[in-house]
Amino acid sequence: MASLTQTTQRATVFIAASETDSNLYYATKFMAPDPFIYVEIKGERILVMSDLEIDRAKSQSSVDRVLSYSEVEGRAKTQGIAEPGVVEVVHILLREAGITQILVPANFPFGHAIKFQSLGYQLYPKRDPFYEERVVKTAEEVRSIEAAQRATEQAVAVAFDLLRRASIENNQLWFDGIPLTSERVKKLINVSLMECDCVAQHTIVAGGEQACDPHNEGSGPLPAHRSIIFDVFPRSATNRYFADMSRTVVRGTPSPELKRLYQTVLDAQEEAITKIKDGADGKRIHQGILRRFEKAGYQTGLVNGRMQGYFHGTGHGVGLDIHEMPRISRTGSLLQEGHVVTVEPGLYYPVSAPCASKTWSSSRKTGAAT
Amino acid sequence: MASLTQTTQRATVFIAASETDSNLYYATKFMAPDPFIYVEIKGERILVMSDLEIDRAKSQSSVDRVLSYSEVEGRAKTQGIAEPGVVEVVHILLREAGITQILVPANFPFGHAIKFQSLGYQLYPKRDPFYEERVVKTAEEVRSIEAAQRATEQAVAVAFDLLRRASIENNQLWFDGIPLTSERVKKLINVSLMECDCVAQHTIVAGGEQACDPHNEGSGPLPAHRSIIFDVFPRSATNRYFADMSRTVVRGTPSPELKRLYQTVLDAQEEAITKIKDGADGKRIHQGILRRFEKAGYQTGLVNGRMQGYFHGTGHGVGLDIHEMPRISRTGSLLQEGHVVTVEPGLYYPVSAPCASKTWSSSRKTGAAT
Repeated sequence: MASLTQTTQRATVFIAASETDSNLYYATKFMAPDPFIYVEIKGERILVMSDLEIDRAKSQSSVDRVLSYSEVEGRAKTQGIAEPGVVEVVHILLREAGITQILVPANFPFGHAIKFQSLGYQLYPKRDPFYEERVVKTAEEVRSIEAAQRATEQAVAVAFDLLRRASIENNQLWFDGIPLTSERVKKLINVSLMECDCVAQHTIVAGGEQACDPHNEGSGPLPAHRSIIFDVFPRSATNRYFADMSRTVVRGTPSPELKRLYQTVLDAQEEAITKIKDGADGKRIHQGILRRFEKAGYQTGLVNGRMQGYFHGTGHGVGLDIHEMPRISRTGSLLQEGHVVTVEPGLYYPVSAPCASKTWSSSRKTGAAT
Repeated sequence: MASLTQTTQRATVFIAASETDSNLYYATKFMAPDPFIYVEIKGERILVMSDLEIDRAKSQSSVDRVLSYSEVEGRAKTQGIAEPGVVEVVHILLREAGITQILVPANFPFGHAIKFQSLGYQLYPKRDPFYEERVVKTAEEVRSIEAAQRATEQAVAVAFDLLRRASIENNQLWFDGIPLTSERVKKLINVSLMECDCVAQHTIVAGGEQACDPHNEGSGPLPAHRSIIFDVFPRSATNRYFADMSRTVVRGTPSPELKRLYQTVLDAQEEAITKIKDGADGKRIHQGILRRFEKAGYQTGLVNGRMQGYFHGTGHGVGLDIHEMPRISRTGSLLQEGHVVTVEPGLYYPVSAPCASKTWSSSRKTGAAT
């Protein structure tokens, strides 16, 4: 099988936990919470695993060969290395293959890197996308993201149903005779997702003032007649892909100003979605939304030391990471068929009368033909 | 406020996501899924945050000062840096403080490190424990771990209750007229934990042959009369600390060999727990268990290319990471009052008659007086 990075003079080396390093999971399809060794040497893809993980690695990973860490460690000792560590174990394999140049991801641990350098290796860090193929999703990957997205839609629908059944008293939402809180709605969403084997963390259900800080997770009683922002981005425990979904809702009667703001965001989102096609420029799509908002009277900038208006990107890739390439933002990327991106414009005004609103969309596949 | 690393000539620099870098969360008490900048300069602890996160960082983090990334980026541009990246933004702050030496964690991204070096900085990587204080838990940290552990015990009790209510047919467990599977029991545990705001991933419920591979998560129908191993290690979504709990149970009638194996593991665990006190050597405790098993006739080693017996560590620290210092294993650590460790001996024999068993214990505080 060909090396994913198509090099023969340089080996690729990862020393990381695939739980948190998605490039490593992508390359090996092996999930582990503790760091392990993965190398690509002359086209062969090799895992070096502890006694504890080796059986599981042999049955679950997609690599060509799984070596025993303790076996290679033993070889290092017979070759005169008194106390071989993880770097020396890799060194044994590279030396046997006559390789002195190493390609590593840009997030490769500096502590390991300087040990390799002291052993005479030249290291070449590569920024994301480390595996270019990862940005363009296969049909199976799209199905994985879609499955997580459907579970998310279902969980958010259960939460909306709870809001509908809530009563309004003193401009607050009530349920079961007590104030309905962000915490309760978030837990309902997270539990619903876990029922579908999706792991939700940092779910946002934020109302009123809290909804004006895009990453405030929300706490306390939910307001009536004002924006409640939902942002839900679980990871599938089975296929490991993320979903991402945001919505703004009002329980009660929104003000005319809030209705207009909501409609402006929704229109911007829909326009952006029509623009997303193979060859489109993410930066221009983002700038188009910013201009559209300004024309509608929604300015972006610092007010009393705090950002107002539209101060985050329009969208980002979704896959094994919640935020990955490509970007639809001020930095931008060229969009390509097979990209899966969010489209999530928003407007935030903490103080003014229509206190806040935004609409974040569900993820959408960039589906134009090449 | 004093710098946590007590240096004035060297600045400490993190560029990481606190969601996955527990040292960074420990230092800042700020949780974010995307990388951000944290520096300690001459005793001052500083975050540099994007417009999107700055409000939340000001209200939630424990640092001395929160700077705006776009503001420092602007300063870099006025100082002649055309396209400042994250390294150049840190560079502006260090240069203003007259600092040229940087202390970084050993897992600091190599890509950033070589940029700092090219700007003339000397980098000093430091291995874990980066913050020595993190290993010794405060009373509040112990309470956080204990709260997660209680939720875990409760979730496992719910699963045990389901096993009790299952019926036995053809050496399998049945419930609701269908075979009771690992998947169903795992979901019950994970959902129960989410109800308590604890996020469980990679929960293990593995029976029979599967229980002989310590990290096999388990799948398919659960066997009667044979070991079912539980390993549950959720992270609290509220306080961010982990719990860790393992148990071996049998539904039906265990063989005499399995009962003896279970009792041997349990006795070893209890002995280890009595040995855990301030000043004890983790390596010696581990070796004691290994010897005890051998004396009882349970050998450890390769059989037909597969490890059998006792081939993982006895315990590890638990805190903001599921596996952290200290170790009770062949590498070992000196134990100290305030450490929180697991005590989890186990024996695994895939082929022989008493197929497999292990007991992993709940986490226990090392509580001897100094």
